[in-house]
Amino acid sequence: MSQYHNDLLLKALRGEEVSRPPVWMMRQAGRYLPDYIKLREQYDFFTRVQTPELACEITLQPVDQIGVDAAIIFSDILVIPQALGLTVLLEEGKGPILPETIKTQQDIDRLIVTDTAERLSYVTDAIKLTVSHLNGAIPLIGFAGAPFTILCYMVEGKGSKSFDKAKEFCFTQPALAHALLQKITDVTIVYLKAQVAAGAAALQVFDSWSGMLAPADFDVFAWPYMKQIADSLKDIAPVILFPKGSWYALPQIGSSGAAGVGIDWTITPALARQLAGRNITIQGNFDPVKLLMPVHDIRKAVHEMITAFGKQRYIANLGHGILPHVPVASAKAFVDAVKEYAG
Amino acid sequence: MSQYHNDLLLKALRGEEVSRPPVWMMRQAGRYLPDYIKLREQYDFFTRVQTPELACEITLQPVDQIGVDAAIIFSDILVIPQALGLTVLLEEGKGPILPETIKTQQDIDRLIVTDTAERLSYVTDAIKLTVSHLNGAIPLIGFAGAPFTILCYMVEGKGSKSFDKAKEFCFTQPALAHALLQKITDVTIVYLKAQVAAGAAALQVFDSWSGMLAPADFDVFAWPYMKQIADSLKDIAPVILFPKGSWYALPQIGSSGAAGVGIDWTITPALARQLAGRNITIQGNFDPVKLLMPVHDIRKAVHEMITAFGKQRYIANLGHGILPHVPVASAKAFVDAVKEYAG
Repeated sequence: MSQYHNDLLLKALRGEEVSRPPVWMMRQAGRYLPDYIKLREQYDFFTRVQTPELACEITLQPVDQIGVDAAIIFSDILVIPQALGLTVLLEEGKGPILPETIKTQQDIDRLIVTDTAERLSYVTDAIKLTVSHLNGAIPLIGFAGAPFTILCYMVEGKGSKSFDKAKEFCFTQPALAHALLQKITDVTIVYLKAQVAAGAAALQVFDSWSGMLAPADFDVFAWPYMKQIADSLKDIAPVILFPKGSWYALPQIGSSGAAGVGIDWTITPALARQLAGRNITIQGNFDPVKLLMPVHDIRKAVHEMITAFGKQRYIANLGHGILPHVPVASAKAFVDAVKEYAG
Repeated sequence: MSQYHNDLLLKALRGEEVSRPPVWMMRQAGRYLPDYIKLREQYDFFTRVQTPELACEITLQPVDQIGVDAAIIFSDILVIPQALGLTVLLEEGKGPILPETIKTQQDIDRLIVTDTAERLSYVTDAIKLTVSHLNGAIPLIGFAGAPFTILCYMVEGKGSKSFDKAKEFCFTQPALAHALLQKITDVTIVYLKAQVAAGAAALQVFDSWSGMLAPADFDVFAWPYMKQIADSLKDIAPVILFPKGSWYALPQIGSSGAAGVGIDWTITPALARQLAGRNITIQGNFDPVKLLMPVHDIRKAVHEMITAFGKQRYIANLGHGILPHVPVASAKAFVDAVKEYAG
């Protein structure tokens, strides 16, 4: 018997037959939820991330209020640059700023690669607390950024439309880029193992910016590191890879041994399945902007999406994070539409 | 005999055999050229666009200095919102601002759809002047933004990473969106016909943001209008469609009667050709960031790109506009690498 009251997510990731697809939403914890917005007025972003009680409370909000089939720990991919010793500034409503951008071998040598689990114990403490509160109701997903995306922020120093500076670093100083990517990979593996030890039942690796790379460059700067992470973790927890925009990588991801792959809405369900093959669970791919449609239209679009993907080896989700101004009722309509799908 | 000394571009667009592929670069006029930067210190952006002598001078700069096989008139896709009666502000180095965003039927009714050719006569004057200066050396490309991309700016009011507001407008007020898209389409067709009458030998339609749409939404909000434009122009000039990021639309574009299709670097040459078929010329798809590599690496990467695309039915170009900080010698190396390709 499963250790979870509702284990649809884990069943789908294992490729077992389900009565309906599981559903959760990227960035479901935070942003659009009134209770979160209240907390945001009291505590700054990294206080919320670094205080296990707050992170736990935020993680649980959508479980009760929206009825998702999985929780995902409230945290941020930029805790890894912080653990490596860099300052990360985050002003509310603006993107992150990393003032000490990585330019040289010396910058890379200076990064702290020891005691990662201890340095990020606030995340594992939040996971333990959340798992205890969930009390077996649903699984909790842990996560990290993929090395290429973390490199993007560490080199660019801030968000960007196209991360040209980060890509220039990769293309003109590939030896430095690989040294940096390997360090990020090593600490990320330690970090994700600690998340599983703390109770995370599945893991997602977000490569938010890999879609800026040509397929051949993805194979050099993104995939080898993502693959190392998947290979190191897959025997202890199912891993979902989400290289946003890198639809072209679906064939190699599909045969990599990862349990799941996230896709955005720019690829049809049929082509995604054709490229990824039958040995991986596909997660996605609702356009987050469509949660601003009337509830009736959301329901119809969700049902069409599930029909297109099929109920098996599929996790209903958005193709990117939920938008801050989505009405709570619309987020709930998305989840309800999956639950009521008769197919 | 051709009316052009060098008609490689037109031959490639007609599917005729060429000794080597033609080459030009998106945004080749402006940005990175020292002579342009000098002009920028004297005249603001729309003065440069609206003064035929300046637009002509800027258009010719890369012809002499970089040696491209085609010129493209120096202008901006936002001249269409201006012709429709909207204010467009452009601060140097920042994105455009359109203070009167489109929200209602009244906003759409207020748009000026008459006298488009007269209202944009500064562009056609610049084309005439440039064609006269080129004196048959190489063809001049005219261009416009595709209706969906123009809608993005008119509704969002500024640049954006994901144009959520513009997409929300389409998804929640489709009747208004279609009314707006049709008005943009109608004036764009008039505008492009005037460009051909003034001497433009080929046309490119830039759908810079269509890649934000799911394939099904592209078919509703982008493609029908792009197709109207292609259908209305294709008998008087070859049309290159560039729906950036919409690789999924290659099959329908390939059989649309458009002469060419632009692609970015996130799709391999082999797959692009497979999806687009053999009845269209493919243009692209060098990652602009790679022009920051050493010249030797640029040359190697360009040769690999041509080998992958093949010499026929192919136009060597970037997959997006040239970056402002590219050394002139590197831009020239890109062009030279195409010219020296022996394959």
